[in-house]
Amino acid sequence: MNTRQILLASRPKGTLTTNDFRFENTELPEIQTGKVLLKGLYYSVDPYMRGRMNDSKSYIPSFQIGQPIEGSVIATVLKSKSDNFKIGDKVLGMLPWSKEIISSEKSLQKIDSSKAPLSYYLGILGMTGLTAYFGMIHICKPKATETVVVSGAAGAVGIVAGQIAKLKGCRVIGITGSDEKIILLKEKYGFDNAINYRTTTDLKKAIVELCPNGVDIYFDNVGGEISDAVISNINFHARIALCGQISLYNSSDTPIGPRLQPLLLMKSVLMQGFIVSNYQSLFPEGIKQLGQWIKEGKLKFTETIVHGFDQLPTALIGLFKGDNTGKMIVEV
Amino acid sequence: MNTRQILLASRPKGTLTTNDFRFENTELPEIQTGKVLLKGLYYSVDPYMRGRMNDSKSYIPSFQIGQPIEGSVIATVLKSKSDNFKIGDKVLGMLPWSKEIISSEKSLQKIDSSKAPLSYYLGILGMTGLTAYFGMIHICKPKATETVVVSGAAGAVGIVAGQIAKLKGCRVIGITGSDEKIILLKEKYGFDNAINYRTTTDLKKAIVELCPNGVDIYFDNVGGEISDAVISNINFHARIALCGQISLYNSSDTPIGPRLQPLLLMKSVLMQGFIVSNYQSLFPEGIKQLGQWIKEGKLKFTETIVHGFDQLPTALIGLFKGDNTGKMIVEV
Repeated sequence: MNTRQILLASRPKGTLTTNDFRFENTELPEIQTGKVLLKGLYYSVDPYMRGRMNDSKSYIPSFQIGQPIEGSVIATVLKSKSDNFKIGDKVLGMLPWSKEIISSEKSLQKIDSSKAPLSYYLGILGMTGLTAYFGMIHICKPKATETVVVSGAAGAVGIVAGQIAKLKGCRVIGITGSDEKIILLKEKYGFDNAINYRTTTDLKKAIVELCPNGVDIYFDNVGGEISDAVISNINFHARIALCGQISLYNSSDTPIGPRLQPLLLMKSVLMQGFIVSNYQSLFPEGIKQLGQWIKEGKLKFTETIVHGFDQLPTALIGLFKGDNTGKMIVEV
Repeated sequence: MNTRQILLASRPKGTLTTNDFRFENTELPEIQTGKVLLKGLYYSVDPYMRGRMNDSKSYIPSFQIGQPIEGSVIATVLKSKSDNFKIGDKVLGMLPWSKEIISSEKSLQKIDSSKAPLSYYLGILGMTGLTAYFGMIHICKPKATETVVVSGAAGAVGIVAGQIAKLKGCRVIGITGSDEKIILLKEKYGFDNAINYRTTTDLKKAIVELCPNGVDIYFDNVGGEISDAVISNINFHARIALCGQISLYNSSDTPIGPRLQPLLLMKSVLMQGFIVSNYQSLFPEGIKQLGQWIKEGKLKFTETIVHGFDQLPTALIGLFKGDNTGKMIVEV
């Protein structure tokens, strides 16, 4: 059958543009034993995907030029030559940006659409929710009354990280890029306060004002000068979870900034980079706890849903401009 | 009685010089109840003392201009108005640079000169040995066959940190500042290899060559460009213990360098700043294990002993030029 795919056209230099992508129609072969034919329903766009567009060694292989972009996709089974999947089953996998997809049964995980809306499995009960959970609980270890700063606070991970810290009794300050998002963080997600980094001229001073007792925990999604401002106000024995560095993903050169080690040494600070798959063996714990908090109404979340397969490149690019609130998903 | 003291003359700007110190003769009063009169025997000079000369908030208060420098001192009791100390007792304390010293009994810890030479309590069984022990064992958690890099390798802490990693079955590479120290590290302390950073033009390449499997653990005493070179070759799930940043202590401005967070994130690296007092409750464990290794001949160490009270400023300044091998002590 004929399908439509989105390929990496070229390795982006600096800021990602639609020219880095190419649409292509292609013919899929008949499926073999152990394989299924899928139709994509929800496609996840995530900041880490920018890194896979570079030709550099990382924890996950680079995308290849002329090959489809790949990401988390929720799909429905159209045809099956697998004993594990039947037509109509809903599945989650790391799959190519293709309207129809042939996949090995081994790459797929069945999901239960009766327990939660399908899209949740790309966000709050999926990679972004679990990232927030493990970063906050296992690295930051929040204690009641501590001050927590979350950058990229209105993003899919930030919203959840901040709420978990609130559930642990912390004072939580978000950093975000619009006044609308500040209102959302405070009114919907219960953040104690938030800073608009685009309109704040002295970020360091703003953080000192909102964190009069210093910063005990910094959950960092963005890096760069925002992080410099937060870390300059860090406390003794603070914990910094490095979850994302979205402000730097589009830069081609090695970014330069103040050396952190003297301060981290002087204050006995922990800084830990992580990816959610480090905690794979603990995913059931995380999903159970997140599901419980949702059920109890203690954990709220937002999805930004964009419609149409052809919108995928624009949606991904939009992440770097702050177009999303919460998890950004493309529905087909 | 009359004694001689060394005071902070001015806050050093950049590199420490003898002009930053002032000698002064002063009269000590009679001792009161609960106090002892001491005669200093061994005075410790340590890199962290440079930080106390600045007027900045840290884990330990700044020295005051016109007041004596203070550090770890081993002394003998000359007069006592304390029930806990008698004449001739040997004690360790954080004490002023003064030939004779009046101290409160509460600030002193009695040491047993029959168990180990007195000077050991300033080094291998004191702050530097324990710093190496807790940094390596509790932060770096070395596993057999891992590759460990130690900067400032021939310093008091580096020598011990490297040997502990060897005892745990690791491959250990030192970074140091002279070819003599390289020979010492390899022949006396069992390092697998070492790099002379002063004569190596491409440090990054040298590290790649000596660490073909990458760097799993980096025990950092120096910071700056040496650390940049090591960290550029860091492995997934590596651990970096920030023990010292001696290359930066003399700089007045905020040092600038490559931003580390993107790499720490991509490789899920742990970076932990620490000071030995974080582990105070575990000191008995550390002293017991270090003493055991010394007794078994598994842990070797060096002291650089300088003679004469008036040499204290020069000895401290010498630490920043690499004049010492192992623990630097001034004997009076």
